[in-house]
Amino acid sequence: MIKIFNLNDVISIKDFQKKDIEFILNEAENLEKIAKSQEFSDELAGKILGMMFFEPSTRTRLSFETSMKKLGGNCVGFAGSSASSVSKGESLADTSKMFEAYSDALIIRHSLEGAAKFISDIVDVPVINAGDGAGQHPTQTLLDLYTIKRQFDKIKGLNVALVGDLKYGRTVHSLAYALGMFDAQMNFVSPDELKMPKETLHDLKKNNVKFHETNNLKNVIDEIDVLYVTRIQKERFPDEEEYSKIKGAYLINHDLVKGKDLIVMHPLPRVDEISTDVDNTKYNKYFEQAFYGVPVRMAILKNIIKNKF
Amino acid sequence: MIKIFNLNDVISIKDFQKKDIEFILNEAENLEKIAKSQEFSDELAGKILGMMFFEPSTRTRLSFETSMKKLGGNCVGFAGSSASSVSKGESLADTSKMFEAYSDALIIRHSLEGAAKFISDIVDVPVINAGDGAGQHPTQTLLDLYTIKRQFDKIKGLNVALVGDLKYGRTVHSLAYALGMFDAQMNFVSPDELKMPKETLHDLKKNNVKFHETNNLKNVIDEIDVLYVTRIQKERFPDEEEYSKIKGAYLINHDLVKGKDLIVMHPLPRVDEISTDVDNTKYNKYFEQAFYGVPVRMAILKNIIKNKF
Amino acid sequence: MIKIFNLNDVISIKDFQKKDIEFILNEAENLEKIAKSQEFSDELAGKILGMMFFEPSTRTRLSFETSMKKLGGNCVGFAGSSASSVSKGESLADTSKMFEAYSDALIIRHSLEGAAKFISDIVDVPVINAGDGAGQHPTQTLLDLYTIKRQFDKIKGLNVALVGDLKYGRTVHSLAYALGMFDAQMNFVSPDELKMPKETLHDLKKNNVKFHETNNLKNVIDEIDVLYVTRIQKERFPDEEEYSKIKGAYLINHDLVKGKDLIVMHPLPRVDEISTDVDNTKYNKYFEQAFYGVPVRMAILKNIIKNKF
Repeated sequence: MIKIFNLNDVISIKDFQKKDIEFILNEAENLEKIAKSQEFSDELAGKILGMMFFEPSTRTRLSFETSMKKLGGNCVGFAGSSASSVSKGESLADTSKMFEAYSDALIIRHSLEGAAKFISDIVDVPVINAGDGAGQHPTQTLLDLYTIKRQFDKIKGLNVALVGDLKYGRTVHSLAYALGMFDAQMNFVSPDELKMPKETLHDLKKNNVKFHETNNLKNVIDEIDVLYVTRIQKERFPDEEEYSKIKGAYLINHDLVKGKDLIVMHPLPRVDEISTDVDNTKYNKYFEQAFYGVPVRMAILKNIIKNKF
Repeated sequence: MIKIFNLNDVISIKDFQKKDIEFILNEAENLEKIAKSQEFSDELAGKILGMMFFEPSTRTRLSFETSMKKLGGNCVGFAGSSASSVSKGESLADTSKMFEAYSDALIIRHSLEGAAKFISDIVDVPVINAGDGAGQHPTQTLLDLYTIKRQFDKIKGLNVALVGDLKYGRTVHSLAYALGMFDAQMNFVSPDELKMPKETLHDLKKNNVKFHETNNLKNVIDEIDVLYVTRIQKERFPDEEEYSKIKGAYLINHDLVKGKDLIVMHPLPRVDEISTDVDNTKYNKYFEQAFYGVPVRMAILKNIIKNKF
Repeated sequence: MIKIFNLNDVISIKDFQKKDIEFILNEAENLEKIAKSQEFSDELAGKILGMMFFEPSTRTRLSFETSMKKLGGNCVGFAGSSASSVSKGESLADTSKMFEAYSDALIIRHSLEGAAKFISDIVDVPVINAGDGAGQHPTQTLLDLYTIKRQFDKIKGLNVALVGDLKYGRTVHSLAYALGMFDAQMNFVSPDELKMPKETLHDLKKNNVKFHETNNLKNVIDEIDVLYVTRIQKERFPDEEEYSKIKGAYLINHDLVKGKDLIVMHPLPRVDEISTDVDNTKYNKYFEQAFYGVPVRMAILKNIIKNKF
């Protein structure tokens, strides 16, 4: 196990080496008791996390805020609707320089792919990408990996099905890449219209990652360890009809998973892609997954801010 | 005096036994110096209060935030306008499970009666009801009682007039119930259209609480100790004309209270039901009442979170 | 050097004696290491700053929040869009009394000149004016002075050009007044339509302050130490055409300042009055100026809250 975290910014999961990910997953496990308020820390007392949410994001925003505050730090920033009033015509570069003046680390969500990278090049404080359009959302990937590792105590050799919208779903692209690094096998289960992009498949092949594509979940349900479901997002569709046709086609319910040896995960929010009859079963790991966002983000914040000082 | 607070959630004043209320009022008095920054506490350091304000509420929100922060804790959440973006079609149950993952206690305001109870049934962290539609707002009732007790050093035997909108006013229903528990006498003073609901009167009778109804404040002004005024809320009226007719009819001014031996209370915000010529007199207790929200909510937060750990 | 700060409120730079300003600038220098997270303080632990932003203000709001939190304190309040829901028809006086109940100090931004003074007359906690319409914004002036003093180690005898909109620019009126107290010389550089108001000039003359007016920056560029640029705010103009004509006429770029012995300042946000080709030069002090808002506001908060207890 390495002793230090080398990254200055968290922009893309592709910037992580396998040992960087292992370090963060290990740190997260150490921080779980603090995340659950069973232990106390003020390691980041006096430190400020600047939050630039140009797009609304409740889950990611709240879990970063919680993570910072559980370590004794605090947050300043803006979110969503107030973003426009922030700028008064100001450039993204100038807004970022302002936040740099007030913060010990920055977290940014923006609709434009590349926004976080752009900012990390012009400010001296650490920058964390909390989602840049169709681009990356690396801390989501880390908490997904952490959830799997906490359940199985390993990732290598597991069989993971990624189900639903694999075309527009930012989450699954990064996760497939990362699972490949850890020698998991993957099944990509989606309607033909929403298959994993060729580019992502190409990357995986280049890295000798084993995967299989299908449009029928039943073909693979008996052999998988993890059923990772994604929301089919209405707003990604140009056409209401296309959305209606597909919606519900990949519904996960208790009947489907009953008697199987697998867990169900979901980045949330869910609409109706997982039936609530799964909620009170052992298959449900999606609420725990949401909680794991806290220790994982604590691990990131603690180490990236510590590196700066 | 009992030594512990037994409730796991604060949903309705009806869940409180008299000894629970006495415990909180006593605790609030102990915490007043911290509320005034004359003493310091970090008893809730590292603890996070999740704030789910589906309806805007500045006073309640700010006083809960202040209470949590004065005890060394911190808050995460959303309020009002951003609430819709929270859900993206997510169910109230799922949103609550998310907040549970991030928080050591939850506070919720919602337009639907029963929302807080519903949430308390599905999450493991303590839930505090900060107003559920026409339902309950128990911490308002507790701070109202505290204000009276701080003034008279007792509640038993006092004569309290509840004035204004007794039909739609959530505050007065709970307060009448609680005053009954403490053997106060009550006068319900309202226009005929806005009388206390039959159901509330029935409850009071069942508990042998003494009350009297009138539409003329002058009939009772000489015999009361507390004049509790409520805002006649325009938004509760289906009809602008009905509102205009009644508005101002129950105006409290200095002439009315001059020479009387009583205090004036109001849950705030006031519009024009109390004339500002009362503000700088000894009768005015409504601003102090607002402050008392802090020690009372500190007492709730401290004990309900302590019970969890 | 005096040892104490005498002001109870920070409403106008005109309330400051020279020694009060010197005290704050000196304190700010002591607090810089904390502002940069090189040292730690929890001097304001348990203290709450109430933030009443009736108008949106990201820069001022964030730097006050950062300042409070870097000293271990915390903040409650509202900003901009949610302001209307705060009041529900409540008077400014009542809203202020509510905030007084929750806070150890208040900061207010309001569109009406005199709003901060009005509030400071009715509440007992310290009040800080964060901009009242066309009126004052004293902490901006203090951080402007601090930026100059940090650069030149003095203010006396410097030659400062205030450039751009000198008519509507709240910032420059207060700054001119304060620079006069410190015996700086001033050049007021503006189009004829946007000259410094007669009233301000009259004040300066009365105090024997040396100043010079011109509409051509080139006349003075060789002799100045500080080039203080202000945004020409579209929203201040009754007429789009007038705005278009002037916009860009006073553009500062690298060609203009190259080889000169001066620094460029700007209260930010900038739109296009300073070309980005100045950003990576030694002339750029506007980003540092933004940072200096933190130690200066820390100095104000620390001393004004300390005075209260």
